[in-house]
Amino acid sequence: MKLSQIGELNLLREVRKKYSSKNSSIIIGIGDDAAVIAPQTEKIVVTTDMMNEGIHFDLSFASPFHLGFKLVSVNVSDIFAMGSKPNYLFLNIAMKNDADEDMFWKIYEGISSAMDIYKTNLAGGDLCAAGNGIVLSATVIGTGDKIITRNSANVGDKIYVTGHLGDSACGLEILKRLTNESKDRVKHIGVTGHQHIGEKLYLRYPDTSIVQHIDFDTVEPLIRRHLMPLARDSAEIAKHATSMIDISDGLFIDLCRICDESSTGAKIYLDKIPISDEMKKTAEIIGLDPIHLATSGGEDYELLFTAPPEITVSTMQYAVSNEKEVPTAYFLLPTPGIICIGEIIEKGRIVVDEKGRDSIMKADGYQHFGSP
Amino acid sequence: MKLSQIGELNLLREVRKKYSSKNSSIIIGIGDDAAVIAPQTEKIVVTTDMMNEGIHFDLSFASPFHLGFKLVSVNVSDIFAMGSKPNYLFLNIAMKNDADEDMFWKIYEGISSAMDIYKTNLAGGDLCAAGNGIVLSATVIGTGDKIITRNSANVGDKIYVTGHLGDSACGLEILKRLTNESKDRVKHIGVTGHQHIGEKLYLRYPDTSIVQHIDFDTVEPLIRRHLMPLARDSAEIAKHATSMIDISDGLFIDLCRICDESSTGAKIYLDKIPISDEMKKTAEIIGLDPIHLATSGGEDYELLFTAPPEITVSTMQYAVSNEKEVPTAYFLLPTPGIICIGEIIEKGRIVVDEKGRDSIMKADGYQHFGSP
Repeated sequence: MKLSQIGELNLLREVRKKYSSKNSSIIIGIGDDAAVIAPQTEKIVVTTDMMNEGIHFDLSFASPFHLGFKLVSVNVSDIFAMGSKPNYLFLNIAMKNDADEDMFWKIYEGISSAMDIYKTNLAGGDLCAAGNGIVLSATVIGTGDKIITRNSANVGDKIYVTGHLGDSACGLEILKRLTNESKDRVKHIGVTGHQHIGEKLYLRYPDTSIVQHIDFDTVEPLIRRHLMPLARDSAEIAKHATSMIDISDGLFIDLCRICDESSTGAKIYLDKIPISDEMKKTAEIIGLDPIHLATSGGEDYELLFTAPPEITVSTMQYAVSNEKEVPTAYFLLPTPGIICIGEIIEKGRIVVDEKGRDSIMKADGYQHFGSP
Repeated sequence: MKLSQIGELNLLREVRKKYSSKNSSIIIGIGDDAAVIAPQTEKIVVTTDMMNEGIHFDLSFASPFHLGFKLVSVNVSDIFAMGSKPNYLFLNIAMKNDADEDMFWKIYEGISSAMDIYKTNLAGGDLCAAGNGIVLSATVIGTGDKIITRNSANVGDKIYVTGHLGDSACGLEILKRLTNESKDRVKHIGVTGHQHIGEKLYLRYPDTSIVQHIDFDTVEPLIRRHLMPLARDSAEIAKHATSMIDISDGLFIDLCRICDESSTGAKIYLDKIPISDEMKKTAEIIGLDPIHLATSGGEDYELLFTAPPEITVSTMQYAVSNEKEVPTAYFLLPTPGIICIGEIIEKGRIVVDEKGRDSIMKADGYQHFGSP
C-alpha cells in the first residue's frame, strides 16, 4: 500500500505502538508535542546527522533496512566518539507520497535492529512528505561524565585506531561497479540468513563491455561495512583516551582535526595501519591502492584516539565491547581490536612509509560542497 | 559564490565563528563529534522537525530568511507547547552544490534572528549536500519542571487559544494566488524596514485572465504569520494549564488530539473563535470561509490549552510574554492575548454555531501522506 493511502496519523500510531520505548527515563515518548526525559546528573551529549537520497545513499544497492541501520549507527558513532553512551534516538523521516508502506517499515526494522545493538531508545520524531527522494535525519542524545574531545591530545601520546580502515570505501567502490543483477543481490546482506559460499558478484567497467567476477564472500564484509556500519563502543577506550574522533571523512583528514584542535602534530607509520586481507585482495582486483583507501576513504566509523604512552593496548582490549553482544550475522570479519599507528608530535603531519621514509600527510577526504 | 566553490569545512568554520553560543551551559558547542551540555536538574524536553522544499515551503514566495526563522519557530513552538523553555538548537541544513552562498547566510540570519527572540542557543549541527532542493531539520532541547501534556484535560476545564486563528492559512491562500511580481515583493516582509502603505498586491486566478488587487497592509500580517510565525511563550500559561498543544494542523484536529489523549469530549463556540479583521476581510475578497480557515487551517502555531474553570483570563494575561521583547517589526497585528473558546465535556466533540445550534466537529486538517 502507498503511504498516501495510509496517512501520516495512522503511520505514527503504528510506530508508537511498535517502537515506543519502555525505558523508565523517558517520561513522555512519541505522541506529544515533544518528548520528555528525566533530569540528568551526567553531562548531556547531542549529535544530529542527515542522510539524503542521491547524496548519502543509492537505493539501487542499499536496501531500506540498510538505510535505517546506518542512520542510527552514524549518529551513535558520534556519541561513542565523545566517550558517551547513546541513550535516546529522535527521528525525522521524509518520503514521497507514492512511496510504498513496506519500504517505510523496512527502514524502521533497520533502525530497530541498530537500536537493539546500541541499547538506544526511540523517544520521538516526525514523519513528513518529501519533495524528492527519501530524507532521513536523526538526533541521538547520550550521557557521560568523562567526555573525550578532539582538542586534548598531548605530545608523546600514542595514536590508535579500532578495526580495519578502508573497508567501507572499498565496499563502495565495489558497489558502484556492480551489474544491476548483482546490486539486487547485495540488498540481502545483513537482512536475512543468506549464505553466499561459492557465489560470485559481477562488476562492469564503464565504457567497456568487460565484466569481471569476484567472490561474494570476499567482498561481503567490505560492502557490509559500507551499507550497515557498526559503531564502536568506546566504554573501555574512554577510560584512557586523551582525545578521540570517529573516522567518517578519512583517517588523515580526521587525524588532522585532532591535531588542529589540539595544536599538535602527528606521525603515522603506514605499515601499522590495519588493512583487512579482504580489502587488500579486492583493491588489487579492481586496481585501487589499499593504502589510499585506508588513509583517505570515508565512512569507516572506526574510532581514532590518542592515549598516554604508558597505556598498553592490552589494557584497552575490551574496547570494542559491544561486539560480544551483537548477533554474529553482523560480523563476518574479525576486527583486530585496537592498533597503535603512530604518535602525537609537536608539529608537522608526517607519514612514514614501510621503508622508513618520511613524507607530508596529504589530508584529502570527503567533504560536502567540495570540488569533485 | 556557489557552495561548491567554498566547501563544507570553510562554511562550518564561518558558522562556528559567527554563531557559536557563549552560553555557559554549553560545555562543547560546534566543532566536535557531538555537542556537550551541562547536567540538568530540570526535565529535558526534546522536539525535532523537518522542512522540505516543495512540501513545507515554496521559494517562489518564501525568502531564505523566512525559512530560517520559521524552522526555529516551529520547533520552539513544540517546546513552548510542553510548558518548557527552548534552550538549545541543533541544525541540519542540506542544500544543492550549486546553491548560492548568499542564500545559505540568509537562512542563518533568519535562524539567528529567531534564536535572539526565543533566547535559544545554537549548540551544534551539520551541513551537507542535498540531491534535490533545500532540506532543513532542527532539534530543540528545552528544560522545564512542570510539563504540560496533551493527556490531562479534565471535564469542566475551559478551552483557550492564544492569538488569532486562520491568519497563516489565509496568508498561504493569498501567497498561492499572487502574480510573480507580487511574490517577489512579499519576500521583503520582516527582513527590512520596508513600508507598504498604500501599496497593492496582485492576485491571479487560474484558468482565467482575471487579476485582482488587494491592499498590502491588509494581508501583510497574514502572510507574515505564514512565512515567519512567532511561537507563543507559554511561561505564564504553564502555571495554570492542565493540557496544551500548539495548533500546527488546525484547531479542530489539534483539539481532537487533546480529547483523544485525555479521553474527554469538547464543546467549542464558533462565535468565540478569535479571527482578525484582516483575515475576515481578506477571506471575503478571495471567496473563502473565515470560520473554516480558523478551525481547519494549519500552521497557526498558536497555543491551544485547557485550564480549570476557576482560573480567569486576566490571571493569564502575561501569557504571550515574549512579545514585549520582540522588535515591533515582527508584530503588525495586535494579538488578542488569550480567549476562551469552549469547555471540556465528558464525551462527544460538539461545535455550537452563532445561533446556538449544535453540530459534530469535523476534524479535518493537514496531514502528510493524506488524500488531497
